[in-house]
Amino acid sequence: MTVWCNGNFVDTLTLDPAERGLMLGDGIFETIAVRNGKPIWLQQHLSRMEEAARAIGLPLQDAEIRKGIAAVLSKSNHISEVLRVTLTRGPTGRGLALNGDKPTLIAALNPFDRATLSQSVQLITASISRHAASPASRFKTLSYIDAVLAAREVADRADDALMLNEHGRVACSTVANIFLLKEQSLITPSSGEAILPGITRAKLNGGARELGLELQLRPVEYEELHAAEAVFLTTSLRLATPVSSIDGKSSGTRDISFINAFFERNLT
Amino acid sequence: MTVWCNGNFVDTLTLDPAERGLMLGDGIFETIAVRNGKPIWLQQHLSRMEEAARAIGLPLQDAEIRKGIAAVLSKSNHISEVLRVTLTRGPTGRGLALNGDKPTLIAALNPFDRATLSQSVQLITASISRHAASPASRFKTLSYIDAVLAAREVADRADDALMLNEHGRVACSTVANIFLLKEQSLITPSSGEAILPGITRAKLNGGARELGLELQLRPVEYEELHAAEAVFLTTSLRLATPVSSIDGKSSGTRDISFINAFFERNLT
Repeated sequence: MTVWCNGNFVDTLTLDPAERGLMLGDGIFETIAVRNGKPIWLQQHLSRMEEAARAIGLPLQDAEIRKGIAAVLSKSNHISEVLRVTLTRGPTGRGLALNGDKPTLIAALNPFDRATLSQSVQLITASISRHAASPASRFKTLSYIDAVLAAREVADRADDALMLNEHGRVACSTVANIFLLKEQSLITPSSGEAILPGITRAKLNGGARELGLELQLRPVEYEELHAAEAVFLTTSLRLATPVSSIDGKSSGTRDISFINAFFERNLT
Repeated sequence: MTVWCNGNFVDTLTLDPAERGLMLGDGIFETIAVRNGKPIWLQQHLSRMEEAARAIGLPLQDAEIRKGIAAVLSKSNHISEVLRVTLTRGPTGRGLALNGDKPTLIAALNPFDRATLSQSVQLITASISRHAASPASRFKTLSYIDAVLAAREVADRADDALMLNEHGRVACSTVANIFLLKEQSLITPSSGEAILPGITRAKLNGGARELGLELQLRPVEYEELHAAEAVFLTTSLRLATPVSSIDGKSSGTRDISFINAFFERNLT
């Protein structure tokens, strides 16, 4: 692992004991695929991070973020890697509403073995749901414990957890957006459905017409998953991954390799 | 500040870059009042921490926790202090569901100036709500960003934010439980209402009969706040604090000093 923190390469993180990223999950992050030393969809990730920073009142750090990313990428020596950028409010005194003046910025580069990606995933619905009125469900914040616990709840029986929203409708998995294919329709839960607005999701939404698909951004009922010709997950690292079963019931088996072919044509 | 981490007194925290407390808000904490070197309601805090650890699948660390607390308390030199105990899942590889085998345990002791406590607080309702299906609302986890953002939302206009739950009913403030007094009734939202089960709340609930009050643990409608003779908040550090107004409307002014007198009689 190559790690850069606030201007320096480091082996361990040295943090103020009042660091709010640790004490209160008060920060945001991005996870970015890197191939042959090049970050994929970097501008989109930085834009989303900037939007999240603005929403939660973190000072914008675009130049510093780019500096940290360039630093760790200069040490890139694998074909496939994962870059994580973490920005916190840094240390403050006691008081939830306080502003820090020393944000903590971390860029970390790790090898990512694409060969270990599973060909398809089994999902089980978690009892823990997502809620549109919770910023933690809409932004990629450090307050990730609900997704952690949803993943742990199903870990013995499935590859990932399906998370529903407060209305019992489909939201996403713990780490991925979810899509359905049915005839010429490409269906994915709309932004008010307590989903994280994924970069890979946005890329596919933008390509639907090119793929001859009619995009439907709308609330998605659970039962629709079982009626779809294919269900798949999207993430920056794994692109599209077919879902083979949901709650023990086999999913539609329509081939989605054309979706991944689309992504591979559009990595810049 | 006196800080102890995993067996040693430290000035700064030295953490593995994969530390899940920082990266995923994957941990829990307790905030404990300390008077003249003695932690108040310690056993209750440790029991709640143990329950949270079990619920989120963290290894129990009771002996280590007691060791860390004893270490920082040995340096106590103020009349009034605040002790925070933080336990995380520590570092792991990639994968939300992974178990760590090196939990991070931090005990930190800070002065707490009781003289600065406000006599009463003004509340404004936050747009961010709490949700019973979210473990982050029921356990004192490091994933605290929803409360942070609720506090920030009202910080220019109020002392704290009132948080409602997914049904629009009263839950708590960002850092405190909430109670209503009406005639001989002591009313507080029940445990299914997306509240944190506060130690001070439990202490008062247990003392209701001694105080000649009829305890009502039940869903509480927002409108009831304005009809109450008194509304007050409870926390381990501040005990009971009267609420003087909610959303700009003055609250009932019944004296609650008998509640704090009860707490002061029952600090052990």
